[in-house]
Amino acid sequence: MNVTVRGTTRHYRTVSFDERKNEVLLIEQRLLPHHFQIVRIPDYRETARAITDMIVRGAGAIGATAAFGFAQGARAFRGRGRSQFEKHLDRVFKTLADARPTAVDPVNAMLALRARMTAGASVEEAQSIAMSGAHAFADEDVAHCEAIGHHGEKLIPEGARVLTHCNAGWLAFVDHGSATAPIYAAQSAGRSFHVFCDETRPRSQGASLTAWELAQQGISHDVIADNAAGHLMQRGEIDLVIVGSDRTLGRSGEVANKIGTYTKAVLAKRHKIPFYVAIPESTIDWTLTNGLDIPIEERHADEVLGAWGVTSKGKREHVRVANPTSGARNPGFDVTPPELITGIITPAGIYKPRDLWRKRRDLGWKA
Amino acid sequence: MNVTVRGTTRHYRTVSFDERKNEVLLIEQRLLPHHFQIVRIPDYRETARAITDMIVRGAGAIGATAAFGFAQGARAFRGRGRSQFEKHLDRVFKTLADARPTAVDPVNAMLALRARMTAGASVEEAQSIAMSGAHAFADEDVAHCEAIGHHGEKLIPEGARVLTHCNAGWLAFVDHGSATAPIYAAQSAGRSFHVFCDETRPRSQGASLTAWELAQQGISHDVIADNAAGHLMQRGEIDLVIVGSDRTLGRSGEVANKIGTYTKAVLAKRHKIPFYVAIPESTIDWTLTNGLDIPIEERHADEVLGAWGVTSKGKREHVRVANPTSGARNPGFDVTPPELITGIITPAGIYKPRDLWRKRRDLGWKA
Repeated sequence: MNVTVRGTTRHYRTVSFDERKNEVLLIEQRLLPHHFQIVRIPDYRETARAITDMIVRGAGAIGATAAFGFAQGARAFRGRGRSQFEKHLDRVFKTLADARPTAVDPVNAMLALRARMTAGASVEEAQSIAMSGAHAFADEDVAHCEAIGHHGEKLIPEGARVLTHCNAGWLAFVDHGSATAPIYAAQSAGRSFHVFCDETRPRSQGASLTAWELAQQGISHDVIADNAAGHLMQRGEIDLVIVGSDRTLGRSGEVANKIGTYTKAVLAKRHKIPFYVAIPESTIDWTLTNGLDIPIEERHADEVLGAWGVTSKGKREHVRVANPTSGARNPGFDVTPPELITGIITPAGIYKPRDLWRKRRDLGWKA
Repeated sequence: MNVTVRGTTRHYRTVSFDERKNEVLLIEQRLLPHHFQIVRIPDYRETARAITDMIVRGAGAIGATAAFGFAQGARAFRGRGRSQFEKHLDRVFKTLADARPTAVDPVNAMLALRARMTAGASVEEAQSIAMSGAHAFADEDVAHCEAIGHHGEKLIPEGARVLTHCNAGWLAFVDHGSATAPIYAAQSAGRSFHVFCDETRPRSQGASLTAWELAQQGISHDVIADNAAGHLMQRGEIDLVIVGSDRTLGRSGEVANKIGTYTKAVLAKRHKIPFYVAIPESTIDWTLTNGLDIPIEERHADEVLGAWGVTSKGKREHVRVANPTSGARNPGFDVTPPELITGIITPAGIYKPRDLWRKRRDLGWKA
């Protein structure tokens, strides 16, 4: 999407690649929303570290980063012969797969690339396929998000007031985002509307990343405390909720997403406000049948007990907010049941959550 | 309640008075939870400033502070004759009433004191009545909170997991608190249980003040992000919710309290978890008939866009968390309807919210 740096507006993707220099280009997301910087990464091992260190985050974005990192590693091969090349690819694969062990997108992206590369008759041809395959992977991520935007934008009429939670924005994908794609598409369709960004404690991705995205795109918005949406719904100030999802169960229609999503769904149901979940098909889990079986990561207590921000002197600091002798519980995700969800916005269309399984052939399910 | 300073545990009230030195003693609440300090205030004008500057906050606590400040001012009279004394009292009254113009407790406390003082035949006698009246006011606040604890402690059985929101603790009153009174009483009854403290963004009174109180009393507790309670309820980890209230409508049973209270009540209803509101009778509004008529203060956006805390070097700082070019909405309170409330715990007993009006004669209503 567009970013304005010192008065100049340009289109950026979260992840891109410089073929001439064999460099991965990433937006340094840890500096956002306070500084915008592109980092150039010349080596696949450093690309893996960029994933580990969270220079880049978000399922789609780290999938594309791993794909480019894999092509980068393949193209850097300086040995001789196919068998040496395959051993080198094993190392590259393992390095990038180990960068964020619980994520599935990097592994899936690299497995697909490597399968394509077997068609290459020579090392050079396989390298070339890796490069074009990585570009295709990133382009497909963009196309999926655009398709989500196409289906979802009709839900946002002129003057609508939309609530979103956390950051399922373009920074989490290669471009457009999932929950934000309908928002950007509605803007492209010429409509004016307002977005409320849940702060999304404890990591505040809504206040920092989503608010930054919307400001860059010139979309009217306000940050609100996670406590405030219930009151705004009660006073008739929210028309629609759109969130993303880390994992959606194709068999049950349950949606795992950032902690607090379930609360917003319960509130929306009470106030008869439509509640939508926007997802690319890659986040549908066709195996699990029960949301209680989704592992809920318990994250570090310090996230809840304090906050990261920038001081009046421009220094990035973590401040302790809570009583210093108290501990915290910090579940990272929650699970929203299908009866609270109006629709799942996918690249293939909008479905009732309980219809995902019946429509699985349209949604990329593989038997 | 008890506070341990450098290994020594002592009982403190939020507000007390040194008659010999004519000084108001306050806990410096702006330094909590990081430092515990008692400030001694030698002059009623400085007592008024302490209210304005929020050294002391909370309805009961500022009521008692104004009562002591009024007695302090009355006792400092150095002029001659009753009419000069009454003029002096007018100045003292106005100074203390203007300290926090929207609060009703300071004015009510001082009006009651001044009415009593008319019985004094001399200036000295009136001064003496002011002093004993201020003590009586503070003691009555304590007795009310103790009575709330007496009625409410039965709701907390051994092993219970209690959720509370914001700080309706002893720091907001003279002692015991409202929402915390049943918790402290259940501890005194020898029971063990666990309390979840909602962080309560944007001002984080749950993470800072309530967590500090519970830690000082040695009560098992965890701070949670405001986003987490829904998930914990879904997993069966919360048995009971107790909150305070800034204003409860005696005619409709609606409860105005810190932003986010309504959300917790909606979640509790969905999960069939009892939701209680603990209040002294002074916060019942017998006039309004509709919660929509309760003014909801819109507070400064900076509260939502950042956080106050202490850096690793021990310095108190406000950090900007949100995107620097974004704004915020910041409603300070919300209104919970009676159908979401299991009971109102008052000094006179526990009532269904819709029964308050029928029971108004037991609850201090004056025709």
